[in-house]
Amino acid sequence: MNFEKEMKEKVKEVQAVIDSYLPEESGFQRTLLEAMNYSMTAGGKRLRPLMMLETYRLFGGTSGVIRPFLAAIEMIHTHSLIHDDLPAMDNDEYRRGRKTTHVVYGEAMGILAGDGLLNFAYETAARAFEMEPDNKNVGKAFRVLTSKTGIYGMIGGQSVDVEMAGQPLSAEKLDFIYRLKTSALIEGAMMTGAILAGASDEKIDKIQQIAQKVGIAFQIQDDILDMTSSMAVLGKPINSDEKNHKTTYVTLYGLEDSRKKVEGISREAIALLDSLEEKNEFLRALILSLIYREK
Amino acid sequence: MNFEKEMKEKVKEVQAVIDSYLPEESGFQRTLLEAMNYSMTAGGKRLRPLMMLETYRLFGGTSGVIRPFLAAIEMIHTHSLIHDDLPAMDNDEYRRGRKTTHVVYGEAMGILAGDGLLNFAYETAARAFEMEPDNKNVGKAFRVLTSKTGIYGMIGGQSVDVEMAGQPLSAEKLDFIYRLKTSALIEGAMMTGAILAGASDEKIDKIQQIAQKVGIAFQIQDDILDMTSSMAVLGKPINSDEKNHKTTYVTLYGLEDSRKKVEGISREAIALLDSLEEKNEFLRALILSLIYREK
Repeated sequence: MNFEKEMKEKVKEVQAVIDSYLPEESGFQRTLLEAMNYSMTAGGKRLRPLMMLETYRLFGGTSGVIRPFLAAIEMIHTHSLIHDDLPAMDNDEYRRGRKTTHVVYGEAMGILAGDGLLNFAYETAARAFEMEPDNKNVGKAFRVLTSKTGIYGMIGGQSVDVEMAGQPLSAEKLDFIYRLKTSALIEGAMMTGAILAGASDEKIDKIQQIAQKVGIAFQIQDDILDMTSSMAVLGKPINSDEKNHKTTYVTLYGLEDSRKKVEGISREAIALLDSLEEKNEFLRALILSLIYREK
Repeated sequence: MNFEKEMKEKVKEVQAVIDSYLPEESGFQRTLLEAMNYSMTAGGKRLRPLMMLETYRLFGGTSGVIRPFLAAIEMIHTHSLIHDDLPAMDNDEYRRGRKTTHVVYGEAMGILAGDGLLNFAYETAARAFEMEPDNKNVGKAFRVLTSKTGIYGMIGGQSVDVEMAGQPLSAEKLDFIYRLKTSALIEGAMMTGAILAGASDEKIDKIQQIAQKVGIAFQIQDDILDMTSSMAVLGKPINSDEKNHKTTYVTLYGLEDSRKKVEGISREAIALLDSLEEKNEFLRALILSLIYREK
């Protein structure tokens, strides 16, 4: 089977799991639940749950205990998109060709839909305690997931990004934002997969390093595409970073060095993955496809 | 020792635990951490952690595993206050005599400080997995806490309250809002205490009923005070519900019936508490002081 076909099937598989955990739209709080589901069904690549599941499989995981965590990580990611789009943040009216949540449901409901998804992510993941009460890795996965999402992870990165909007960034601060805002949740995804599959601490640490590199290479590739791709391919305005005076890898180091950086980091990530005795060809191809993408 | 003196000491005790879990204000995300701590140190009665701790003690709990949960429930409560105060919600500029978080730190940082606290609550509570990896009650406490906070608890109640703002409410909808917006987190607090102390499911269920009644009586008493107290005693404008055309227990049933309702529900709550073989005189006095308060 070729990669693209396999990818499609795996996304479908992950999507079915996520759908099975979405709240039923009923009760007095129906509007809130509709707003949450509106955002959760807006499409998207489902990369984080995919990477979680494939890392779980890399280490031989086969149980259903991963399922609520797959839904949870996508809810956390969607929570961050809803709040990033709010008028007080990026003030975006469209995402993936659809009106953003606060545009459709109002700002108050946008805030609450984001809160609702973040909390429901953990409420959903907590079902794993019922599924496998004796499995100590569930608590361990919780610790990592909350930490990678939080103030020393995604939310912390977002806060620095928001605070520095419109101001030039130092290389150190830019690295910090990329690591927290983009890499942290990918680390959370892959580490959760490894932990739930019972991987050793040494291997979990390797997975964290891989995920961090993948996240940073992914983000730099984003900067490169913003500069070089055409609007037709990317589906959104190009050169937006330059127009917004945004500091990116490309504005800081130039196109050529940015390309070299992507090349270097991704080679390191793949070398680390290949150094594991466990193998998952699909995960390897997935990582490469993320880094060397055209859109 | 009289109740008021004991109350002061216990608040101090709980406050010290909460403080020990607050993030250190350093790193590039320092502003976010400052905004979180600003809200967490704005005063307040610490009722939820107090009720959690005293329910824990009621059932003989003595271990440190309760500590991160005490901090967590106050973080969850504070998260809800920060987001409730936002311009898109109640648009409040002052709380407890201090400027609200978004007024001091800006709206974007207010949203992120709320997100940060909600997530950090679970990150903090998750430390209990490290403290007692073999204690299955920690996972069970997680399930209850996430559920009482979430879309079928506090956040769900808040969404209906926000959606119905300025519109008349049916008795059924008002009860729903009181139960979810106010009672749910008190249920979460007391049930978490009971669960971590190893109480039986039957007793945990009784605690849930007690907490639900306490929350509703507390909320109706709030409505009564809004109508009858003086601004000097309450420290905030009175008759605000009437002026805002807000449906409350008092506008729906009148003062006399509202007082009878508080009396009836609180008697039921105390009877349930007294029916337990376990005793905690302070918890009993605390519940009564909440319901029959003057401000």
